[in-house]
Amino acid sequence: METPKRRRSNTRARLLEGALEVFAERGFHGASVEDICERAGFTRGAFYSNFASKDELVLALFQATTDRLLEQIEALLPELANQPGTLLDAVLGLLDEAAPDQRQWHLISTEFTLHALRDPEAAQALNTQRAMFRDSLTKLVEQITETSGLTLSVPAEQFVRLVIAVHEGARSQSLLEPRKLPPGELEHTFLPMVLEAVSRPSR
Amino acid sequence: METPKRRRSNTRARLLEGALEVFAERGFHGASVEDICERAGFTRGAFYSNFASKDELVLALFQATTDRLLEQIEALLPELANQPGTLLDAVLGLLDEAAPDQRQWHLISTEFTLHALRDPEAAQALNTQRAMFRDSLTKLVEQITETSGLTLSVPAEQFVRLVIAVHEGARSQSLLEPRKLPPGELEHTFLPMVLEAVSRPSR
Repeated sequence: METPKRRRSNTRARLLEGALEVFAERGFHGASVEDICERAGFTRGAFYSNFASKDELVLALFQATTDRLLEQIEALLPELANQPGTLLDAVLGLLDEAAPDQRQWHLISTEFTLHALRDPEAAQALNTQRAMFRDSLTKLVEQITETSGLTLSVPAEQFVRLVIAVHEGARSQSLLEPRKLPPGELEHTFLPMVLEAVSRPSR
Repeated sequence: METPKRRRSNTRARLLEGALEVFAERGFHGASVEDICERAGFTRGAFYSNFASKDELVLALFQATTDRLLEQIEALLPELANQPGTLLDAVLGLLDEAAPDQRQWHLISTEFTLHALRDPEAAQALNTQRAMFRDSLTKLVEQITETSGLTLSVPAEQFVRLVIAVHEGARSQSLLEPRKLPPGELEHTFLPMVLEAVSRPSR
């Protein structure tokens, strides 16, 4: 039997899924709460009992994706914590697969970033969330370099920022020209090189 | 005295300038041709005698910026062609300053890329233009590595794609958190490292 808590969580999941589709078709600004409710098969009441606004729904989408990604990365650690290069390759693979549809995901995450550049409240919420994700990855990098007896010549957070920048910049190029730049190619070619260039044995 | 050709070129320049402002405020989709004409002080007739569409105007904006950038890079060559690392730093500096306002520039170039991901005709025009820019940079990298007696372990075009990806990805982070990530920091820290890692003496 479906409990009220379970039902609420299903409603949220279906709203998130429907929203991703509607955003990809009509854009963040072009998609209304009504459009999202219609696609997911719910009333406006169901929407607003789950999310205060369209912004909050997008941030919940980001949170769900980054939570899943961090869980998957943590699952790799027991086996790969002392092989930073191999682990990096595996993490880059997870980034590629983090969203079921990279094109939809790129559209909404880029559009919401542009929205945040024009709306200070959205910027604050987005920055808080991105900082949490970046901090989790930074702690992982620090933990792994320590386990492997390595010291980085740059702050771990700066390397994490580079990984995110290359991933986001390359995804845009791959979506525009999928046959000329396979997804992940730039990341897998260059980031292990950078990791090696900034790594020194600790003693 | 103003010649008709000169007058036409001034009109184009003022329309491009006005458009950049209106796009930054209202977004590519939110800005109408009327808005742009009003800002630049011209009639719709003046607009359509210069540009077939809003898309064509944006592509002309991109073309003007990349032409200027390539000219500036060529001007550096006589002095720096045999110092790839220093030249790369100088080119990265030019990328930062290519647009008079990085925020406006980021908004319109990212929005037009999103538009292209939903509109095959815009995608084709954008890809043609981006390919021309990338090809020019690739030829420069090949010329410089040859002058310096170096061989790259990756195709020059792949390195150029990386420079563009890091620049675009990092710009988004810097605009969201200007105090936490100064513009150009990731590019200047990591790209010279990559160039060194992929360079070998030719003989």
